[in-house]
Amino acid sequence: MRTALVGLDLGGTNIKSVLLDARSLKVITKRQIPTLAHLGSGAVIKILAGEIGYLLRVAGSKNIGVTAIGLGSAGLVNKGTVRNSPNLPGWQGAVPLERLLKKELPGLKIPLAIDNDANCFALAETLCGAAKGSQNVVGLTLGTGVGGGIVFGGKLYRGSTGGAGELGHTSIKYDGPRCLCGNKGCLEAMVGANAIIARYSALNSNFKLQTSNFTVAEISARAKKGEPAAVKALAETGVLLGVGLANYVNIFNPQAIIIGGGVAQAGKYILDPAIKEMKQRAMSYNALGVKVKLAKLGPWAGAIGAALLVKKI
Amino acid sequence: MRTALVGLDLGGTNIKSVLLDARSLKVITKRQIPTLAHLGSGAVIKILAGEIGYLLRVAGSKNIGVTAIGLGSAGLVNKGTVRNSPNLPGWQGAVPLERLLKKELPGLKIPLAIDNDANCFALAETLCGAAKGSQNVVGLTLGTGVGGGIVFGGKLYRGSTGGAGELGHTSIKYDGPRCLCGNKGCLEAMVGANAIIARYSALNSNFKLQTSNFTVAEISARAKKGEPAAVKALAETGVLLGVGLANYVNIFNPQAIIIGGGVAQAGKYILDPAIKEMKQRAMSYNALGVKVKLAKLGPWAGAIGAALLVKKI
Repeated sequence: MRTALVGLDLGGTNIKSVLLDARSLKVITKRQIPTLAHLGSGAVIKILAGEIGYLLRVAGSKNIGVTAIGLGSAGLVNKGTVRNSPNLPGWQGAVPLERLLKKELPGLKIPLAIDNDANCFALAETLCGAAKGSQNVVGLTLGTGVGGGIVFGGKLYRGSTGGAGELGHTSIKYDGPRCLCGNKGCLEAMVGANAIIARYSALNSNFKLQTSNFTVAEISARAKKGEPAAVKALAETGVLLGVGLANYVNIFNPQAIIIGGGVAQAGKYILDPAIKEMKQRAMSYNALGVKVKLAKLGPWAGAIGAALLVKKI
Repeated sequence: MRTALVGLDLGGTNIKSVLLDARSLKVITKRQIPTLAHLGSGAVIKILAGEIGYLLRVAGSKNIGVTAIGLGSAGLVNKGTVRNSPNLPGWQGAVPLERLLKKELPGLKIPLAIDNDANCFALAETLCGAAKGSQNVVGLTLGTGVGGGIVFGGKLYRGSTGGAGELGHTSIKYDGPRCLCGNKGCLEAMVGANAIIARYSALNSNFKLQTSNFTVAEISARAKKGEPAAVKALAETGVLLGVGLANYVNIFNPQAIIIGGGVAQAGKYILDPAIKEMKQRAMSYNALGVKVKLAKLGPWAGAIGAALLVKKI
């Protein structure tokens, strides 16, 4: 019998879900629905359960047996409980997501695993994305937040209480700008989307930030058209990202660092200066052995990695 | 038959060696001889082989069977080859230490392993030192250099080519002082012995550094007597160390961080401000779960960890 895995990626705006062939790791079907986070955790958990039910029915209709379910969530995930998930209003404190979700899925006989979304991203890119074939991988998601996932020997490293891999919250300037996490000079505060927009705004004297909808994607589009301020803002961001990459290269000596998230769509405008800076700063023997690459699985990486949580746990 | 392990710690000045009971992990015998590094790698390798022979004979005379030999060395160690060992003159480039040492030990029938000295330190403190019982441990050696070793799930993490754990060469101030490694603002450049002495020198206007023999131990002694400049120099160093510790707590979510090396003898004068700063900066859930402790095995940790390399490899 053909078997498959169900994976869900719980974001602040959307829930993405996939049915993944357990053998080929190819996506059989995928879809996206709104999270409706403003309705609170109880409602979101019901939506998640509904989505799982939908995918189980799709699998059943194709005569495919589902062997495991995985869920990726923002925040710190330890033993099925989610903490510090700032993008999900009403999720303050600790939400025992695994327990509550299982309650909504009575009679469920297959394993259900929950992990941090950046961990899921790193796992997916390692097992079937840009770092396929590598054993030691660092995954970095660049967006409003900067998340990280660490894969050692082909397995996720979660730390003692699920809090490992907070790569966006490592300071590269101890007296730098205050980060939302309370620390100063964190990579997130230096290369997160808000920092990039502020950098662009400071470099382009004609630019007035009139709407909160202005995005790094727009800066990237302007860079592609050759606008100097946009190119410079992304290059300066890349240099700072390169400082962080050098740190990770010296700490982890990984075979690959995979960069994903919305900001990664700026591509070479950020990545080229980042790689150049990393090579100047990192131990040369470590720098020689690492490939820094853009993610390959796009916005579905989180859901794909979630599906793989049990398989490769 | 009682069995034991042989461990050697190759330093720039001395070679320390131990015979370790394989069951109790207690030191049966230990000794220290000069490295004579100025004689070059060939001579040092002969001295190492002689030291191993000595310990094998000691074991034999006590009717103890030696089951493995381990060696810790400064520098980057990959598959028995040592690179970048600045404290060993004449070891420029890559020295195939394992192969050359085995050549000096014809007929050797037990396994011989070589690893980085800070890795050995971290392994020893995890298995029989200050972090005994912990699975996920970060070891940090503070001296002229700042070294690191990472233990995950009770095992050393070496990275893809043995270069992982270069924790001293992570930048906490990307535009900070130049480090010997070429990077800027590395922890080593900020909290290494030379940085501490420079900091003390700047704070104590009566102090003129007249000899290159002035040490952090002397600053610690002055701090213990209550000299304000000494206390302040160590406290400022501790705050910077705390920035690094917060980064490691967010990256690794370890159960323990063990601080060793000569500078660690400054004890609470560095450690108290370091822990305070770490707690202010790190993710609170991660900070809650970590113990920052001074090393327990003293100057023999490297040799003890080396002895454990094969046992726990």
